Amino acid sequence: MSADQLPSWHGTPTKRSIVEFVAAVTDPDSPDFVPERDRVAVFDNDGTLWTEQPVYAQLVFAIDRAAELGHPTSLDKLQAGGMAALIELVALTHAGITTAEFDDLCRNWLASARHPRFGRPYPQTVYQPMLELLGLLDRSGFSCWIFSGGGTDFMRAWAGDVYGVPQHRVIGSVGETEFRIGAGGPELVKTPKVQVIDDGPQKPSSIHRHVGQRPILAAGNTDGDLAMLQWTAASPHRTLQLVVHHTDAEREYAYDVDPILGSGTDQILAAAADHQWTVIDMAADWASVHAAT
Amino acid sequence: MSADQLPSWHGTPTKRSIVEFVAAVTDPDSPDFVPERDRVAVFDNDGTLWTEQPVYAQLVFAIDRAAELGHPTSLDKLQAGGMAALIELVALTHAGITTAEFDDLCRNWLASARHPRFGRPYPQTVYQPMLELLGLLDRSGFSCWIFSGGGTDFMRAWAGDVYGVPQHRVIGSVGETEFRIGAGGPELVKTPKVQVIDDGPQKPSSIHRHVGQRPILAAGNTDGDLAMLQWTAASPHRTLQLVVHHTDAEREYAYDVDPILGSGTDQILAAAADHQWTVIDMAADWASVHAAT
Repeated sequence: MSADQLPSWHGTPTKRSIVEFVAAVTDPDSPDFVPERDRVAVFDNDGTLWTEQPVYAQLVFAIDRAAELGHPTSLDKLQAGGMAALIELVALTHAGITTAEFDDLCRNWLASARHPRFGRPYPQTVYQPMLELLGLLDRSGFSCWIFSGGGTDFMRAWAGDVYGVPQHRVIGSVGETEFRIGAGGPELVKTPKVQVIDDGPQKPSSIHRHVGQRPILAAGNTDGDLAMLQWTAASPHRTLQLVVHHTDAEREYAYDVDPILGSGTDQILAAAADHQWTVIDMAADWASVHAAT
Repeated sequence: MSADQLPSWHGTPTKRSIVEFVAAVTDPDSPDFVPERDRVAVFDNDGTLWTEQPVYAQLVFAIDRAAELGHPTSLDKLQAGGMAALIELVALTHAGITTAEFDDLCRNWLASARHPRFGRPYPQTVYQPMLELLGLLDRSGFSCWIFSGGGTDFMRAWAGDVYGVPQHRVIGSVGETEFRIGAGGPELVKTPKVQVIDDGPQKPSSIHRHVGQRPILAAGNTDGDLAMLQWTAASPHRTLQLVVHHTDAEREYAYDVDPILGSGTDQILAAAADHQWTVIDMAADWASVHAAT
């Protein structure tokens, strides 16, 4: 294909490293050729594929739902209450209903909620350059998977459609569900019990469990993605690691530490420097951040 | 396709129910048409896709490995020790090594171990009629998934190749893994902690987690598969439920209760009668059980 498949990327070394990698692993005559069944790519979501500032969409959803349920809370209260307050909020807002009911709640919320700065639905705060990358990889025989710290059920209410990947490739944190024969027939009820928090060293374990093979491309943006990128880098195939660096206060946000959960970027940026991973400098590398409305 | 795609099935009502179902859901002019993305089929493994008698292959593997490790045990001892003895055996034989090392162990064992009655490698005790069914479904636009009570890592050492499904569609019970940077680089170490036992009401939860949609076809053989079949039956699409009934002492085994774990068939056969699910009478419905050697 001769047309530029990454039009929202400036012609910087970052773009060239991506295009060259994809060309090398898909060219049967290249020494770096990777058979299609091994072309697995994994992506973090919050801050890697869509805007996570000023507050994670799922946390806004939980705060809105808590108010609806008659238990209003606020970001300040949650930050003061730490992890215990967060777990309590998740138990209140993400449990005691069926998976079908929860999916409806998420879809309804997503249809009406707007990002406070950009004034658009959260699914329209996905990064246009990353959508183009997902498309390029899909057309190049890759299977793209999402491994998010966010909840799987929340993610699947929108991410499959937005990113063009099947539901089974959208993975996140997991709460236990219980099977029961309800009034309307067999159903799964969400429980407050957290089975997996899909962050940090858990991400390679989740990839092993859900994919069953080692990826050759991984993209993340915080230290919580470091293990995923390390795991991928150790593939016997040629690999590519991408780190989205938030340097663009004008068009999005500039930050190195997430103000809500406190996850930083020191370790992943140091590892990127050590191993020549590709750091995406949002301000310099992206011609646009979000799609035009 | 006019050629018989299920040659190892006798021309009984069982075969006709399968062929008619597949034709109906794949015919765009049928009122029962199901779009390809919703054609998900789920299969139990032990006793549904391969022979589970006289002893589950994975249990034989564990007993053999315990002996190698200098901790010999026996089936009698395990039965006397109940679930606690089983958990201890799994911790001894399935943990403390990397996922790559465990995969090697499984593959080596599978290459040399032989089924005590049939004298062939365990992967050659898969049911030829079920292999034909998996092939028919694959050619008909279905995604076939395995949801086994056996361990995911043990299953993936052979099941993907034998059943012709990608690794991510081979799911079973799961032990936790821990990411570490070892001498040879990043690796996952198997721990003795069991995260999920993929049986009974857990099966719908596992399907929700791994597939993210409700199947339209489910096949099992014991009460441990009942919830999976119930979950599938409640799809808004037309569905098919298959129960493999072990009625063939001559060519395989005739039993209703598994002698090792004690799982029975009372509930699933009662549900099959109640809901007109398709019971596969192995002796009457299958022209052959295993492939000729």
